[in-house]
Amino acid sequence: MLIREATPEDWPAIWPFFHAIVAAGETFTFPLDLDFEQGRGWWLLTAPNRTVVAVDEATGAVLGTAKMNRNHQGNGSHIASASYMVDPAHSGRGIGRALAEYTIAWAREAGYRAMQFNAVVASNAHAVKLYESLGFTVIGTLPEGFHHPTEGYVGLHVMHRPL
Amino acid sequence: MLIREATPEDWPAIWPFFHAIVAAGETFTFPLDLDFEQGRGWWLLTAPNRTVVAVDEATGAVLGTAKMNRNHQGNGSHIASASYMVDPAHSGRGIGRALAEYTIAWAREAGYRAMQFNAVVASNAHAVKLYESLGFTVIGTLPEGFHHPTEGYVGLHVMHRPL
Repeated sequence: MLIREATPEDWPAIWPFFHAIVAAGETFTFPLDLDFEQGRGWWLLTAPNRTVVAVDEATGAVLGTAKMNRNHQGNGSHIASASYMVDPAHSGRGIGRALAEYTIAWAREAGYRAMQFNAVVASNAHAVKLYESLGFTVIGTLPEGFHHPTEGYVGLHVMHRPL
Repeated sequence: MLIREATPEDWPAIWPFFHAIVAAGETFTFPLDLDFEQGRGWWLLTAPNRTVVAVDEATGAVLGTAKMNRNHQGNGSHIASASYMVDPAHSGRGIGRALAEYTIAWAREAGYRAMQFNAVVASNAHAVKLYESLGFTVIGTLPEGFHHPTEGYVGLHVMHRPL
């Protein structure tokens, strides 16, 4: 697996799993009906923020993607954030972990002092466990902050990791 | 005091205290160097989000302002947020409290289920106390999330109030 900068030309390969994940409405606080163009605007960030893709070194297939960005402005500019999506067809290969580690290293090198996730759906146990294994802690939970399509109202975690 | 919709024509009256508060860098995670046009873009929201001004009924002077907005999209769309600025020349008159009560009522009427503040500077004791008196609780604090110009790194509270 190779992690490299995402380009607009990667979007057609990202879109199928991005769309499936967003439309399912289980893990992201994105509008569920984002179309192809809107989705690109939400996901492909511009400098100094970044978006990368994890690709299969043999086939070039896009396996997952991460975006990383400044989370607060002004005197909160030392806090970064990031988001991850992995193609469900390629889950279980450590792609999410590799992407998360990549963004933590980026944030540290870019001079950020901490990383914050603003809205981790509490029922997304896989993600919460992964982030905790990478040193993040839940610093607070917005009660009933997310309306899960099958589980009803669940919490939205704010997670934090010093760098 | 009257609270009414803000218009672009109000911006020259808002700008002096908006600019002073933002440039001081003690209470908002806004870029400290926002100029007149940029500041207007940050503060004057468009429907369905809103920005209002509190004006002196006798003189028409703008005493303070509030913006109120959806805080999360998609399946987090039931969470609102708001921000407030009061002209320091008119502090102590209950303007901040009146604006906060106005935004809570707006959010409830608009169908939101809760209000969340994403980044309340922990050293801003006046604001924290006001919000707590209005039913908000600190649900978590980002450690050293804000670099206060004189107090150094202080926490950034996430605050929440059911509606």
